[in-house]
Order: sequence, then structure tokens, then C-alpha cells
Amino acid sequence: MIHFREELDEMQSRLLEMAGLVESAIHQSVAALVHRDEQSAKEVLWKEALINQKDIEIDEYATRLLALYQPMARDMRFLTAVIKINGDLERMGDLAVNITQRALSLMRDPPVRPLIDIPQMANLAEEMVRKSLDALVKRDEELARSVLVSDDEVDRLRDAVYKELVAFMQEQSTTIPRAVDLMFIAHNLERIADHATNIAEDVLFLVKGIDVRHHAEVREQTALAKP
Amino acid sequence: MIHFREELDEMQSRLLEMAGLVESAIHQSVAALVHRDEQSAKEVLWKEALINQKDIEIDEYATRLLALYQPMARDMRFLTAVIKINGDLERMGDLAVNITQRALSLMRDPPVRPLIDIPQMANLAEEMVRKSLDALVKRDEELARSVLVSDDEVDRLRDAVYKELVAFMQEQSTTIPRAVDLMFIAHNLERIADHATNIAEDVLFLVKGIDVRHHAEVREQTALAKP
Repeated sequence: MIHFREELDEMQSRLLEMAGLVESAIHQSVAALVHRDEQSAKEVLWKEALINQKDIEIDEYATRLLALYQPMARDMRFLTAVIKINGDLERMGDLAVNITQRALSLMRDPPVRPLIDIPQMANLAEEMVRKSLDALVKRDEELARSVLVSDDEVDRLRDAVYKELVAFMQEQSTTIPRAVDLMFIAHNLERIADHATNIAEDVLFLVKGIDVRHHAEVREQTALAKP
Repeated sequence: MIHFREELDEMQSRLLEMAGLVESAIHQSVAALVHRDEQSAKEVLWKEALINQKDIEIDEYATRLLALYQPMARDMRFLTAVIKINGDLERMGDLAVNITQRALSLMRDPPVRPLIDIPQMANLAEEMVRKSLDALVKRDEELARSVLVSDDEVDRLRDAVYKELVAFMQEQSTTIPRAVDLMFIAHNLERIADHATNIAEDVLFLVKGIDVRHHAEVREQTALAKP
């Protein structure tokens, strides 16, 4: 079984490599927005091609390991978790591209105003992605739970961004197309945070064998700081 | 092996039952919007609870079959496809809930105007969901490919909806919050179509053993009618 253990380690390394690419794509998509930086935008588009390639490779590798070995309980859970986490990471790559496309569209016009809470949302979402993968590596239940708590904060920030942008559009109708771009950027960040939450839930399933998806009570218990 | 074949049939039946629930949730979310029907909205929320429960059951069942039997090539591909399709269906349920929440918010105010191309987008997206599952049942390559083609049409409709809504907000700023709701409904329908496309891609992988994800050339070949 030593060989299988090595394969599982290799599997995890590949997933983390994928995650590294996705994290940097998210970071650069926000940099493209904040600094109006076309070079960052180009790098996101280039990285997405790599991410898509890795997505397929990881799926194939995980499926091969499932077929070759006959993994029991925990190893089986790990491999099915890899397939799901891989899917979440790939979707995050797509969302980074969406943010980048909006950022490129915004570069063509003068800046609307300070970006409200969007950079703060981005920081929080990026941190959630990092923590969810960290929780996977360390099989760390507490860290995984902290991601679920942050998700509520991201939702709160998104609501604030929407409200401000609607008020802003109503004041000055010429800004509407740009405000719509910003609204969708906030939406994409919120979805990145959702995917990080999915990963944290998969980690909890892996570590504890309990399924916390759709179980509001678990999330409420962990959300100590909620008003 | 007869027993395993029966289990695979049972697996597919359960997935189709899940799909049936999701399809009707999508349909009712749009009915809630178009007919301003609160009863339909309530049924979507009720169905989503069921969908979430089935999501977990199907994942567990597929994982158990993977562990119990040692499926080879095609059966292995089927079971990993089930896990992915199940995930796509569950996300569609969430999107139906998002549409419903926007529909409920819109019911509190007078109607903005005819709903532009949104009902047409909804019909197309629903048809894609139905066809992608039908393609799974019949292992029908052509039907799966037709879903990929429809996805481009949905994107085109969404762009038209956005454009009209922006013009509309610019004309009459009091409609902005309602126009934003409609914009996100169009966005959610487009994402439902994306998930149907994912399912069609999984079916193609299952039938042909080829992976068409991220391969733009394949999609372009099939998109004969594209301008």
C-alpha cells in the first residue's frame, strides 16, 4: 500500500498546484480592477488556460486512482473530495476571468469613484480560498469552520455594495453601465467565497465524516460573532 | 455482476428523480416571476429542501458503489459523472431559489414592463436541462451536442436583456432596483444553462470517452447556426 500512499500525496500536490494558480488568478483579477492594470488582466486570461488543462488532468488522475486501487472509507472520501474541490477551483478560475472582463471594460472609461467595499470583499474571499486549502492540507476542522463564518461576512459586504451602487446609479444615470460592472464584480467575489465554503465543507466531511452541507444549524453554531 | 448493474440502474433513477425536482423548481421560479405567483415561490423553497437532501443521498450512494464494487472504465466514468451531475443539479436548485427571491422582491412593487426576453431565456434554459438529462438516459451524443449549441443562444439573449435593462434604467431612475433584480434573474438563467452545458459535456465524456470541456473548437464545430 506504500505506492498508493505516494499516489495520494502526489494527488494532493497537484490539487494544491491548481489551487495556487487559481489564487493568483483571483488576486490578479482584482489587481486589474483596482490598479486599472491591463498586464494583470492578460495574465489572468493566460492562467485560466492552464487551470482548465489542470482541471482535466486532476479529474483523470483521481478517476484512475479510484479504478486502480480499491480505496476504503477515508481514502475514498479523499478522492471524491478531490474531484469536487477540483470542480470548485475550476469555477473560481472562470469567475476570476469574469472579474477581469469587467475590469477591462471599466478601464475604457474614467473611474467611477473609490471602489467602495469591493477590495475588502476581495481580501476576505482570497483569505477564504487560502484557508479552505490550508484546512485540507492540515485536515484542520477549526480552520475549515472559520471559512464558513467568513462567508456570512462576505454576504453582508455584498449587500452593502449593492445598496451603495443602486443609490449611486439613481443619483447619476451616466454611471449605470459602470455601476453594473461593479455589481457583477461583487457578485463574482461572493461566488468565489461560496466555492471556498464548498471546499471547507468537503474538508469537514473528510475530517469528521459528517456532512455539513445544507445544515444551517451547524453554520449558526459556528457564527459566534454574528449580530 | 447482475447485482451491480441493478445498482447502477437504481443510481440513474435516483439522479433522474433529483433532476425532475430541479426542473420543476426552475419552472416554478419563472412562473413566480411571470405570473407574480406567491404560491409557486413557496413551492420552490419547499422543493429546494428536498433537493438538498437528495444531493447528499446521491453522493453517498455513488461513493458507496465506488467502494463496494471495483468498477472498470465505463462504469467508473458513469459513477464519477453522477457525482458531478448531481453537483450541477444541486446548484441549479440554488439558482432557482435566487430567481424566486428576486421574483418575491419584484412582487412587492408594480410591474416594470413586459419582461423583455427573460421568459424566452427561461424556456431555452429549461429545454437545455431536459435535453442534457435525456442525453444521459439515451447516451445520445447528438442530443448532448445540441445543448452546447443552445448555450450560445442563451448568452446572446442575456446580452440583449442586459442592454435593454441598462437603457431602461438610464431613462427612468426609479426603476433601477427592479431592473437590477431582473438583471440578476437573467444572470441566474444563464448560469442554469451553463450547468446544463456541464451535464451535456459529462454525457459526451461518458459516451465517447472524450473530454470536450474547455475545447472551444469542438463547440464551434457544433455551432453551425452561429452568425
